[in-house]
Amino acid sequence: MADPTCVFCRIIAGEVPAHFVIDQGDVLAFLDARPLFPGHTLVVPREHVVTLPELAPERVEPVFATVRRVAAAVVAGLDADGSFVALNNVVSQSVPHLHVHVVPRRRKDGLRGFFWPRTRYADEAEAEAVAARIREALDPADG
Amino acid sequence: MADPTCVFCRIIAGEVPAHFVIDQGDVLAFLDARPLFPGHTLVVPREHVVTLPELAPERVEPVFATVRRVAAAVVAGLDADGSFVALNNVVSQSVPHLHVHVVPRRRKDGLRGFFWPRTRYADEAEAEAVAARIREALDPADG
Repeated sequence: MADPTCVFCRIIAGEVPAHFVIDQGDVLAFLDARPLFPGHTLVVPREHVVTLPELAPERVEPVFATVRRVAAAVVAGLDADGSFVALNNVVSQSVPHLHVHVVPRRRKDGLRGFFWPRTRYADEAEAEAVAARIREALDPADG
Repeated sequence: MADPTCVFCRIIAGEVPAHFVIDQGDVLAFLDARPLFPGHTLVVPREHVVTLPELAPERVEPVFATVRRVAAAVVAGLDADGSFVALNNVVSQSVPHLHVHVVPRRRKDGLRGFFWPRTRYADEAEAEAVAARIREALDPADG
Protein backbone atom coordinates (compact mmCIF):
# COMPACT_ATOMS: atom_id res chain seq x y z
CA MET A 1 0.00 0.00 0.00
CA ALA A 2 1.57 3.28 -1.06
CA ASP A 3 1.62 6.23 1.33
CA PRO A 4 1.05 9.44 -0.68
CA THR A 5 3.06 11.45 1.85
CA CYS A 6 6.12 9.17 1.54
CA VAL A 7 8.83 10.35 -0.84
CA PHE A 8 9.99 6.79 -1.54
CA CYS A 9 6.45 5.71 -2.40
CA ARG A 10 6.32 8.70 -4.73
CA ILE A 11 9.65 7.74 -6.34
CA ILE A 12 8.36 4.18 -6.80
CA ALA A 13 5.15 5.56 -8.33
CA GLY A 14 7.19 7.66 -10.77
CA GLU A 15 5.96 10.93 -9.28
CA VAL A 16 9.40 11.99 -8.07
CA PRO A 17 12.43 11.38 -10.28
CA ALA A 18 15.27 9.08 -9.27
CA HIS A 19 18.10 7.22 -10.94
CA PHE A 20 16.98 3.62 -10.81
CA VAL A 21 19.29 0.66 -10.56
CA ILE A 22 16.35 -1.78 -10.41
CA ASP A 23 13.01 -0.37 -11.55
CA GLN A 24 10.70 -3.36 -11.49
CA GLY A 25 9.53 -6.06 -9.12
CA ASP A 26 8.69 -5.98 -5.44
CA VAL A 27 12.09 -4.62 -4.41
CA LEU A 28 13.54 -1.58 -6.15
CA ALA A 29 16.88 0.18 -6.04
CA PHE A 30 17.78 3.76 -6.87
CA LEU A 31 20.60 6.14 -6.15
CA ASP A 32 20.59 8.16 -2.96
CA ALA A 33 20.43 11.78 -4.10
CA ARG A 34 22.98 12.76 -1.43
CA PRO A 35 25.50 9.96 -1.67
CA LEU A 36 28.20 9.16 0.78
CA PHE A 37 30.13 8.18 -2.34
CA PRO A 38 28.91 8.06 -5.95
CA GLY A 39 26.97 4.86 -6.46
CA HIS A 40 25.39 4.94 -2.98
CA THR A 41 22.23 3.01 -3.67
CA LEU A 42 19.04 2.51 -1.66
CA VAL A 43 17.27 -0.86 -1.78
CA VAL A 44 13.59 -0.34 -1.01
CA PRO A 45 10.59 -2.66 -0.91
CA ARG A 46 7.77 -1.44 -3.11
CA GLU A 47 5.32 -1.88 -0.27
CA HIS A 48 5.29 0.91 2.30
CA VAL A 49 6.73 -0.57 5.48
CA VAL A 50 8.69 1.47 7.98
CA THR A 51 11.19 -0.74 9.81
CA LEU A 52 12.85 -4.11 9.43
CA PRO A 53 10.95 -5.67 12.35
CA GLU A 54 7.73 -4.56 10.63
CA LEU A 55 8.70 -6.23 7.35
CA ALA A 56 6.67 -9.40 6.87
CA PRO A 57 8.85 -12.51 7.36
CA GLU A 58 8.28 -13.64 3.78
CA ARG A 59 9.60 -10.29 2.50
CA VAL A 60 12.98 -10.62 4.20
CA GLU A 61 14.45 -12.85 1.52
CA PRO A 62 13.53 -10.70 -1.50
CA VAL A 63 14.76 -7.50 0.13
CA PHE A 64 18.12 -8.91 1.19
CA ALA A 65 18.64 -10.98 -1.93
CA THR A 66 18.45 -7.64 -3.73
CA VAL A 67 20.84 -6.05 -1.23
CA ARG A 68 23.28 -8.88 -1.88
CA ARG A 69 22.92 -8.42 -5.62
CA VAL A 70 23.43 -4.65 -5.45
CA ALA A 71 26.38 -5.04 -3.07
CA ALA A 72 28.10 -7.16 -5.70
CA ALA A 73 27.15 -4.77 -8.50
CA VAL A 74 28.46 -1.58 -6.90
CA VAL A 75 31.84 -3.28 -6.52
CA ALA A 76 31.90 -4.77 -10.01
CA GLY A 77 30.36 -1.77 -11.76
CA LEU A 78 32.35 0.93 -10.04
CA ASP A 79 35.65 -0.87 -9.50
CA ALA A 80 35.23 -0.54 -5.74
CA ASP A 81 37.05 -2.65 -3.15
CA GLY A 82 34.07 -3.43 -0.95
CA SER A 83 30.79 -2.08 0.30
CA PHE A 84 28.98 -0.83 3.36
CA VAL A 85 25.41 -2.01 3.92
CA ALA A 86 23.30 -0.24 6.55
CA LEU A 87 19.80 0.53 7.62
CA ASN A 88 18.37 2.68 10.37
CA ASN A 89 15.22 1.65 12.20
CA VAL A 90 13.36 4.66 13.68
CA VAL A 91 16.35 6.57 15.09
CA SER A 92 18.31 8.35 12.33
CA GLN A 93 15.80 7.01 9.81
CA SER A 94 15.38 10.02 7.55
CA VAL A 95 12.55 8.57 5.45
CA PRO A 96 10.00 6.34 7.22
CA HIS A 97 10.01 3.72 4.45
CA LEU A 98 12.44 0.84 4.91
CA HIS A 99 15.59 1.45 2.89
CA VAL A 100 18.91 -0.33 2.93
CA HIS A 101 21.93 1.76 2.06
CA VAL A 102 24.49 0.01 -0.15
CA VAL A 103 27.61 2.16 -0.43
CA PRO A 104 30.70 1.33 -2.48
CA ARG A 105 33.87 1.57 -0.44
CA ARG A 106 37.50 1.86 -1.41
CA ARG A 107 40.56 1.36 0.68
CA LYS A 108 41.83 4.73 1.87
CA ASP A 109 38.54 6.38 0.92
CA GLY A 110 38.80 8.55 4.01
CA LEU A 111 36.28 6.71 6.14
CA ARG A 112 37.97 4.91 8.95
CA GLY A 113 37.03 1.50 10.23
CA PHE A 114 33.89 1.25 12.17
CA PHE A 115 33.20 4.86 12.56
CA TRP A 116 31.67 5.45 15.92
CA PRO A 117 33.28 5.62 19.32
CA ARG A 118 33.09 2.26 20.99
CA THR A 119 32.74 1.51 24.65
CA ARG A 120 33.36 -1.47 26.92
CA TYR A 121 31.27 -3.41 29.38
CA ALA A 122 32.33 -2.83 32.99
CA ASP A 123 32.77 -6.57 33.44
CA GLU A 124 31.61 -9.92 32.13
CA ALA A 125 28.62 -9.95 34.45
CA GLU A 126 27.31 -6.71 32.99
CA ALA A 127 27.73 -8.07 29.45
CA GLU A 128 25.96 -11.29 30.34
CA ALA A 129 23.06 -9.39 31.92
CA VAL A 130 22.65 -7.39 28.72
CA ALA A 131 22.77 -10.54 26.57
CA ALA A 132 20.13 -12.14 28.80
CA ARG A 133 17.76 -9.20 28.37
CA ILE A 134 18.03 -9.51 24.58
CA ARG A 135 17.62 -13.30 24.68
CA GLU A 136 14.48 -12.98 26.76
CA ALA A 137 13.04 -10.47 24.28
CA LEU A 138 13.57 -12.71 21.24
CA ASP A 139 10.46 -13.78 19.45
CA PRO A 140 10.30 -17.52 18.88
CA ALA A 141 12.40 -18.39 15.84
CA ASP A 142 9.44 -19.88 14.04
CA GLY A 143 7.10 -17.05 15.06
CA MET B 1 33.67 -25.21 7.16
CA ALA B 2 35.34 -23.54 10.13
CA ASP B 3 38.53 -21.56 9.67
CA PRO B 4 40.82 -22.21 12.68
CA THR B 5 42.42 -18.78 12.27
CA CYS B 6 39.05 -16.97 12.40
CA VAL B 7 38.04 -15.58 15.79
CA PHE B 8 34.34 -15.86 14.98
CA CYS B 9 34.74 -19.52 14.00
CA ARG B 10 36.51 -20.01 17.32
CA ILE B 11 33.70 -18.27 19.22
CA ILE B 12 31.18 -20.47 17.42
CA ALA B 13 33.25 -23.56 18.30
CA GLY B 14 33.29 -22.50 21.97
CA GLU B 15 37.06 -21.96 21.96
CA VAL B 16 36.79 -18.23 22.61
CA PRO B 17 34.21 -16.93 25.10
CA ALA B 18 31.36 -14.67 24.08
CA HIS B 19 27.99 -13.60 25.44
CA PHE B 20 25.56 -15.38 23.19
CA VAL B 21 22.12 -14.08 22.28
CA ILE B 22 21.47 -17.08 20.00
CA ASP B 23 23.75 -20.06 20.52
CA GLN B 24 22.32 -22.73 18.28
CA GLY B 25 21.37 -23.23 14.66
CA ASP B 26 23.02 -22.10 11.44
CA VAL B 27 22.96 -18.42 12.39
CA LEU B 28 24.27 -17.29 15.76
CA ALA B 29 24.28 -14.00 17.62
CA PHE B 30 26.58 -12.75 20.34
CA LEU B 31 27.56 -9.43 21.85
CA ASP B 32 30.27 -7.35 20.25
CA ALA B 33 32.99 -7.14 22.89
CA ARG B 34 33.53 -3.46 22.05
CA PRO B 35 29.99 -2.18 21.69
CA LEU B 36 28.93 1.08 20.21
CA PHE B 37 26.23 0.92 22.87
CA PRO B 38 25.50 -1.90 25.32
CA GLY B 39 23.54 -4.60 23.54
CA HIS B 40 25.45 -4.17 20.26
CA THR B 41 25.03 -7.66 18.82
CA LEU B 42 26.69 -9.46 15.92
CA VAL B 43 24.64 -11.85 13.79
CA VAL B 44 26.96 -14.41 12.23
CA PRO B 45 26.41 -17.46 10.02
CA ARG B 46 27.96 -20.58 11.50
CA GLU B 47 29.60 -21.32 8.18
CA HIS B 48 32.78 -19.37 7.47
CA VAL B 49 31.96 -17.00 4.64
CA VAL B 50 33.60 -13.61 4.25
CA THR B 51 31.23 -11.20 2.51
CA LEU B 52 27.55 -10.86 1.69
CA PRO B 53 28.06 -11.41 -2.05
CA GLU B 54 29.85 -14.66 -1.16
CA LEU B 55 26.97 -15.87 0.99
CA ALA B 56 25.07 -18.61 -0.85
CA PRO B 57 21.67 -17.35 -2.06
CA GLU B 58 19.82 -19.87 0.09
CA ARG B 59 21.60 -18.56 3.19
CA VAL B 60 20.37 -14.99 2.77
CA GLU B 61 16.98 -15.63 4.32
CA PRO B 62 18.19 -17.34 7.51
CA VAL B 63 20.85 -14.69 8.17
CA PHE B 64 18.53 -11.72 7.71
CA ALA B 65 15.54 -13.36 9.39
CA THR B 66 17.83 -13.55 12.42
CA VAL B 67 18.90 -9.93 11.96
CA ARG B 68 15.23 -8.93 11.89
CA ARG B 69 14.56 -10.95 15.02
CA VAL B 70 17.53 -9.48 16.89
CA ALA B 71 16.65 -5.95 15.73
CA ALA B 72 13.26 -6.35 17.39
CA ALA B 73 14.77 -7.91 20.51
CA VAL B 74 17.36 -5.22 21.20
CA VAL B 75 14.57 -2.64 21.18
CA ALA B 76 12.15 -4.69 23.28
CA GLY B 77 14.76 -6.08 25.65
CA LEU B 78 16.69 -2.88 26.24
CA ASP B 79 13.89 -0.31 25.99
CA ALA B 80 15.58 1.26 22.99
CA ASP B 81 13.87 3.51 20.46
CA GLY B 82 15.26 1.92 17.33
CA SER B 83 18.26 0.14 15.90
CA PHE B 84 21.11 0.45 13.47
CA VAL B 85 21.91 -2.55 11.28
CA ALA B 86 25.16 -2.58 9.32
CA LEU B 87 27.73 -4.76 7.70
CA ASN B 88 31.05 -4.07 6.06
CA ASN B 89 32.20 -6.06 3.05
CA VAL B 90 36.01 -6.11 2.72
CA VAL B 91 36.74 -2.45 3.50
CA SER B 92 36.45 -1.72 7.25
CA GLN B 93 35.63 -5.38 7.80
CA SER B 94 37.60 -6.09 10.96
CA VAL B 95 36.96 -9.84 11.03
CA PRO B 96 36.82 -11.67 7.68
CA HIS B 97 33.72 -13.68 8.64
CA LEU B 98 30.39 -12.15 7.65
CA HIS B 99 28.83 -10.37 10.61
CA VAL B 100 25.88 -8.04 10.77
CA HIS B 101 25.98 -5.41 13.50
CA VAL B 102 22.66 -4.80 15.25
CA VAL B 103 22.98 -1.80 17.54
CA PRO B 104 20.24 -0.45 19.81
CA ARG B 105 19.67 3.26 19.33
CA ARG B 106 17.98 5.89 21.43
CA ARG B 107 16.88 9.35 20.49
CA LYS B 108 19.52 11.84 21.62
CA ASP B 109 22.05 9.05 22.10
CA GLY B 110 24.75 11.32 20.78
CA LEU B 111 25.02 9.84 17.30
CA ARG B 112 23.69 12.18 14.73
CA GLY B 113 21.67 11.17 11.70
CA PHE B 114 23.52 9.46 8.98
CA PHE B 115 26.97 9.94 10.21
CA TRP B 116 29.25 10.45 7.29
CA PRO B 117 29.78 13.50 5.13
CA ARG B 118 27.60 13.30 2.08
CA THR B 119 28.30 14.61 -1.37
CA ARG B 120 26.30 15.50 -4.45
CA TYR B 121 26.41 14.47 -8.09
CA ALA B 122 27.59 17.26 -10.38
CA ASP B 123 24.43 16.90 -12.44
CA GLU B 124 21.73 14.44 -13.38
CA ALA B 125 23.80 13.07 -16.24
CA GLU B 126 26.61 12.09 -13.89
CA ALA B 127 24.14 10.36 -11.58
CA GLU B 128 22.53 8.51 -14.46
CA ALA B 129 25.92 7.34 -15.74
CA VAL B 130 26.73 5.93 -12.32
CA ALA B 131 23.36 4.18 -12.09
CA ALA B 132 23.92 2.68 -15.52
CA ARG B 133 27.28 1.23 -14.50
CA ILE B 134 25.67 -0.47 -11.51
CA ARG B 135 22.74 -1.73 -13.58
CA GLU B 136 25.08 -3.25 -16.13
CA ALA B 137 27.00 -5.02 -13.36
CA LEU B 138 23.89 -6.64 -11.84
CA ASP B 139 23.82 -10.39 -11.96
CA PRO B 140 20.59 -11.75 -13.36
CA ALA B 141 17.95 -11.74 -10.63
CA ASP B 142 17.47 -15.49 -10.87
CA GLY B 143 21.23 -16.13 -11.10
